[in-house]
Amino acid sequence: MESVGIVAPQRMQFSQPLALQNGSALAGYELMVETYGTLNAARSNAVLVCHALNASHHVAGTYAGEPKNVGWWDNMVGPGKPLDTNRFFVIGVNNLGSCFGSTGPMSIDPATGRPFGASFPVVTVEDWVHAQARVADAFGIERFAAVMGGSLGGMQALAWSMMYPERVAHCIDIASTPKLSAQNIAFNEVARSAILSDPDFHGGDYYAHGVKPKRGLRVARMIGHITYLSDDDMATKFGRALRRENGSVGAAEAYNFSFDVEFEVESYLRYQGEKFADYFDANTYLLLTRALDYFDPAKAFGGDLTAALALTSARYLVISFATDWRFAPARSREIVKALLDNKRHVTYAEIDAPHGHDAFLLDDARYHNAVRAYYERIAEEVGA
Amino acid sequence: MESVGIVAPQRMQFSQPLALQNGSALAGYELMVETYGTLNAARSNAVLVCHALNASHHVAGTYAGEPKNVGWWDNMVGPGKPLDTNRFFVIGVNNLGSCFGSTGPMSIDPATGRPFGASFPVVTVEDWVHAQARVADAFGIERFAAVMGGSLGGMQALAWSMMYPERVAHCIDIASTPKLSAQNIAFNEVARSAILSDPDFHGGDYYAHGVKPKRGLRVARMIGHITYLSDDDMATKFGRALRRENGSVGAAEAYNFSFDVEFEVESYLRYQGEKFADYFDANTYLLLTRALDYFDPAKAFGGDLTAALALTSARYLVISFATDWRFAPARSREIVKALLDNKRHVTYAEIDAPHGHDAFLLDDARYHNAVRAYYERIAEEVGA
Repeated sequence: MESVGIVAPQRMQFSQPLALQNGSALAGYELMVETYGTLNAARSNAVLVCHALNASHHVAGTYAGEPKNVGWWDNMVGPGKPLDTNRFFVIGVNNLGSCFGSTGPMSIDPATGRPFGASFPVVTVEDWVHAQARVADAFGIERFAAVMGGSLGGMQALAWSMMYPERVAHCIDIASTPKLSAQNIAFNEVARSAILSDPDFHGGDYYAHGVKPKRGLRVARMIGHITYLSDDDMATKFGRALRRENGSVGAAEAYNFSFDVEFEVESYLRYQGEKFADYFDANTYLLLTRALDYFDPAKAFGGDLTAALALTSARYLVISFATDWRFAPARSREIVKALLDNKRHVTYAEIDAPHGHDAFLLDDARYHNAVRAYYERIAEEVGA
Repeated sequence: MESVGIVAPQRMQFSQPLALQNGSALAGYELMVETYGTLNAARSNAVLVCHALNASHHVAGTYAGEPKNVGWWDNMVGPGKPLDTNRFFVIGVNNLGSCFGSTGPMSIDPATGRPFGASFPVVTVEDWVHAQARVADAFGIERFAAVMGGSLGGMQALAWSMMYPERVAHCIDIASTPKLSAQNIAFNEVARSAILSDPDFHGGDYYAHGVKPKRGLRVARMIGHITYLSDDDMATKFGRALRRENGSVGAAEAYNFSFDVEFEVESYLRYQGEKFADYFDANTYLLLTRALDYFDPAKAFGGDLTAALALTSARYLVISFATDWRFAPARSREIVKALLDNKRHVTYAEIDAPHGHDAFLLDDARYHNAVRAYYERIAEEVGA
């Protein structure tokens, strides 16, 4: 299948203050946005794709001169792909607080002339949805054909359907959860502790010191990676194979008896940690994991998710993956049950994929066919 | 039930060199040892209890003037307890490389006059077993009525039955595994990375700098704790309850919108991390997690555990816990299957306890009754 090809992001400026859930407000802000496909005359074919922890507005395609910089959901979004850009107008938005060009901790605070750093407000999923709604306004989109996301992106899709029910025809919620469990929060807390205790963190104002808390970021990312993969997937990919300096892998070889990389899985984790620490911002990591922790739409309803979802009017596609132990299928089924309690239209697919939480980003035929079929139905409805 | 009461450890000195699996040798070494009960005239009632990652020779009872310093398996070992010290002579040994008085990284290297630090050899489960065998020799114990341990301690018990089959009548292997999975190694690697990258680690020679890599130790322990508890147990214990400064807990209260402790589970993890960093040694943490990684008795047999266990002659009690996701029941069943393939006597109990890996340290009636019944049979055999 084709890619959307060469794309270019746009920087959108919003000068109206944005009230935030923590009680503060951003006087003005910028969001990086990318679009694919063409908005039809009725403006009925728009789909908002919400990103998860470490992704961005760059959902599909590549940038001029950067052929390896492929959008994070390029296998899902493009001409002829499950979310078909020949039919739909797709929008990716980098969320507030992220580190890919939208206003966040690295941005200059106009009040001080210095980077926000630790003073950037703790934003929430709901704050992001309000900010994204203004993007829709700017495009003249009154109602999305669909709002879609996986993991933290799925939380945004679900929140959209609750906060702006009249603006969401369909909500596509993948590998997500109505709220983090204690164990989920615990993993986030360990990752944050690694960052907060890194001497290069400097209370969040490390930009002024010309350093980055890379040690903390590396450990944070390594922890994350363990939770993204299934135990079985790790066993299949790495097992107990030993890593050898020449790159050869052989289980029969002898141990080195050291704390250097010895097993393949160690090499993989260290590489992932190193790469992440190079490109990601530590303050953003703190903010995004906290947004995950805080998301709990049933909280205002005494924990009753059914009551929380009573005001929705969208139709839903909910997808989970059998080996996802971060947000297990049971968590998705909580959403499905609460929607069914409200007599909403729900399609639910539990995909027996081996790749754990990461499966939502991978190209699995059963998964992609389910999404494709659902979008074909939407396309008929909206005349896309 | 009674406790063994006030006990006192003894320091045993061994002057004969100990050859280690990594090819080096310790010229001489000391081991901290504690015993409970009385060795009978036939020396047939001795039980060796092997410790896991953060425990020691202090298995039961308290020390004079330290009523809160209770042995780590006091609910299991004592007069009238499952391992009844009225009948058995129980030995606890602090392993080489640990930080509770036995020779380890904090000890003075006689060759240099300075602490071993990073130069302490990477010891293995098998090295520990050889060192423990000399403890048995010193007590004149030719054959243990049982060698028993949980988790890493279970690995030592299993190794005993393979390395000294004639010296082990019964092997009691609890919440253990024949080898770590890739995911198990991955968690250890993240914990080690946190320690190794702490600026206070100083390449393992932090003693000379008068500091401890506490940040790394805290994060390492927090990660460990997540893997010791089950998801459900964490949900029951903490859920999403918020921690408030006055200590009151209330789910209905509002968020603080910060990275300070917000949820109860965060408070718990930070407390555990802090406590651990105060009393545990970072080099020991590296060594003990590496010993876990390396344990793989089937490795020398091309991965064939049945072949590896062919030389055993002990009888076995194997116990696992349903909610243990660190070393899940399936891992214990691998051991059971390989033993049955060899026509060994095996009693296997899978306890439906909610407490995850930690369950092996807790007082569960079904678990303790299984151990008690097994020891009653041993007592009849050995005339204890």
